[in-house]
Amino acid sequence: MKRIYNFSAGPAILPEEVLKEAAEEMLDYQNSGMSVMEMSHRSKIYQSIIDEAEKDLRELLNIPDNYKVLFLQGGATLQFSMVPINLMKQGKADFIITGQWAQKAAEEAQKFGEVNIVASSEDKMFSYIPDVSDLKISEDADYVHMCDNNTIYGTKYKELPNTKGKILVSDASSCFLSEPLDVTKFGVIFAGAQKNVGPAGTVIVIIREDLIRSDIDPKTPIMLRYDIQEKHKSMYNTPPTYGIYLCGKVFKWLKKMGGLEVMHERNIKKANLLYDYLDSSKMFFGTVDKNSRSLMNVTFKSTSPELDDEFIKQAKARGFDNLKGYRTVGGMRASIYNAMPIEGVRALVEFMCEFEKNNG
Amino acid sequence: MKRIYNFSAGPAILPEEVLKEAAEEMLDYQNSGMSVMEMSHRSKIYQSIIDEAEKDLRELLNIPDNYKVLFLQGGATLQFSMVPINLMKQGKADFIITGQWAQKAAEEAQKFGEVNIVASSEDKMFSYIPDVSDLKISEDADYVHMCDNNTIYGTKYKELPNTKGKILVSDASSCFLSEPLDVTKFGVIFAGAQKNVGPAGTVIVIIREDLIRSDIDPKTPIMLRYDIQEKHKSMYNTPPTYGIYLCGKVFKWLKKMGGLEVMHERNIKKANLLYDYLDSSKMFFGTVDKNSRSLMNVTFKSTSPELDDEFIKQAKARGFDNLKGYRTVGGMRASIYNAMPIEGVRALVEFMCEFEKNNG
Repeated sequence: MKRIYNFSAGPAILPEEVLKEAAEEMLDYQNSGMSVMEMSHRSKIYQSIIDEAEKDLRELLNIPDNYKVLFLQGGATLQFSMVPINLMKQGKADFIITGQWAQKAAEEAQKFGEVNIVASSEDKMFSYIPDVSDLKISEDADYVHMCDNNTIYGTKYKELPNTKGKILVSDASSCFLSEPLDVTKFGVIFAGAQKNVGPAGTVIVIIREDLIRSDIDPKTPIMLRYDIQEKHKSMYNTPPTYGIYLCGKVFKWLKKMGGLEVMHERNIKKANLLYDYLDSSKMFFGTVDKNSRSLMNVTFKSTSPELDDEFIKQAKARGFDNLKGYRTVGGMRASIYNAMPIEGVRALVEFMCEFEKNNG
Repeated sequence: MKRIYNFSAGPAILPEEVLKEAAEEMLDYQNSGMSVMEMSHRSKIYQSIIDEAEKDLRELLNIPDNYKVLFLQGGATLQFSMVPINLMKQGKADFIITGQWAQKAAEEAQKFGEVNIVASSEDKMFSYIPDVSDLKISEDADYVHMCDNNTIYGTKYKELPNTKGKILVSDASSCFLSEPLDVTKFGVIFAGAQKNVGPAGTVIVIIREDLIRSDIDPKTPIMLRYDIQEKHKSMYNTPPTYGIYLCGKVFKWLKKMGGLEVMHERNIKKANLLYDYLDSSKMFFGTVDKNSRSLMNVTFKSTSPELDDEFIKQAKARGFDNLKGYRTVGGMRASIYNAMPIEGVRALVEFMCEFEKNNG
């Protein structure tokens, strides 16, 4: 068996331990004589899997009782529709545009109400998080939307926006569970699993219960109603059972690792290894504002696009895969999610040093 | 390792061979050094997985070029919304109600237009498929909706409805790939994977390309637009990559087994074993009209609910699991999808004989 260092931005690396367990249990989960894939979602045995996943997630994030946890389908993109459909009461939302995903969310929200851009970093190619301490929040805004970690550009908020009392909605897809989060500061947090939690096809939604309304547009497709999904505990129809099982395994792994404080320290250590090298290198440099740097997605470039290509090619041959930057951004991106071991980052930095020496 | 005979209606049994391969490839797919779960959906290696899945499905069902194949999320239930949203042009659809799923689809369609019930078997608890040879099809119906195999009740169409030229839409979730299907007779066929094809969280949509319209309600959530999903070849956002990979493995298994003609023969043989016994038993009897019997879900009862419970209990102890009928129907249901080996059915019948002898 060969395992590479996989720097993919998502779907992304998962803890080897989790994959090993999943492989071992594939034909027979805990002496049930079935794969988890083969279990009725209405069975006791499956119910205990999803219940335990929720319990562990609540523990990791210290989620208060007045927040509901949903395991849904459709990715963060379907949340771009579900949030405005379910939360827009007065028909207005404020958006902070820090990249393509916030932009897409804003475009989608415009179908369902008025969208007001209260801050944007588009002027500098989304290479920084704007000052969000004193925004012109709309008086009648139903909520303020943010994208916490910007996978494509490699930026992350260091302070939450001052929403002046308005509900904060966060797309946390690519930093979810990478550090502690004060859930009480948010109305809704959603995260596609395929970055830091599990396989693609499951999106986790944490929503304050008073925001789950029944008096929404009656023409709303039933699967897009938070009230229905909540009432049926994510099982209005068959949920992505196997994906939820894997998310649950990752939650257990995070607990075993020591929880989110420990993961945060680890992630800082990993990211600093790379950023420190980038700051000292004469060939490679980070592409975003130092104060906005993401711990999960480290974006960088070399002195020329040709050299970037050469670097990516040689890195791949050495077992460092998926380092190519997003197509609209170019350069390189090393996604170093929770499951990336520090050895992987260390090895990458060593290889970068070597490459710089040989091509400098 | 223990494996039971799993008669679950869905999520359901999968071919052991497929699960074994998936387990073996879990940490390293074909020497890539990654699990399929860890692969970028934009990578060449993943593209070849989804392309091959589509190619094999086209081959199995002999899908003509003017039909598109989509691998989407949200299950058949999201199709209950997507079909009327995308197909209702004149705002009307005709429905044939053969059970709960057709009923739910009709209720959902009513949000988006007028629904006309052209036939129903509700009068006899959905225990038969109504005569569909001469229906009162609405002149301005955009389509006619049917649910081909009714998982809960254990019925299946033997002849397709005469739609008098209107487009036929079929929810084929629980009989998909159990026998050959003339795709050209349909406008849309959709099927949740978790019955006969793969894990929950993937729904397969086969749609005639001229039915994919862009001039639909601009307020449609973007993920619910067939035109967007088709344009992006099921990758407008990250698809359920691992689920699609497993569906692909099942398609390969079906090809290896000899294709759908062979599967159909096998399925007839399996179902007949059970139905023949039910017809000869003095304790057990089938619950649906003989001419409407499903090859996939065999529903039956014994002489009393108490005996049903006792049977289910003893069967479970002997390794025949998930035989309990749907909660609104009672009795028993043996779901014998493609992946259920004939030995499983034979063993069940033997056990039923034994039970009848001991409790008769």
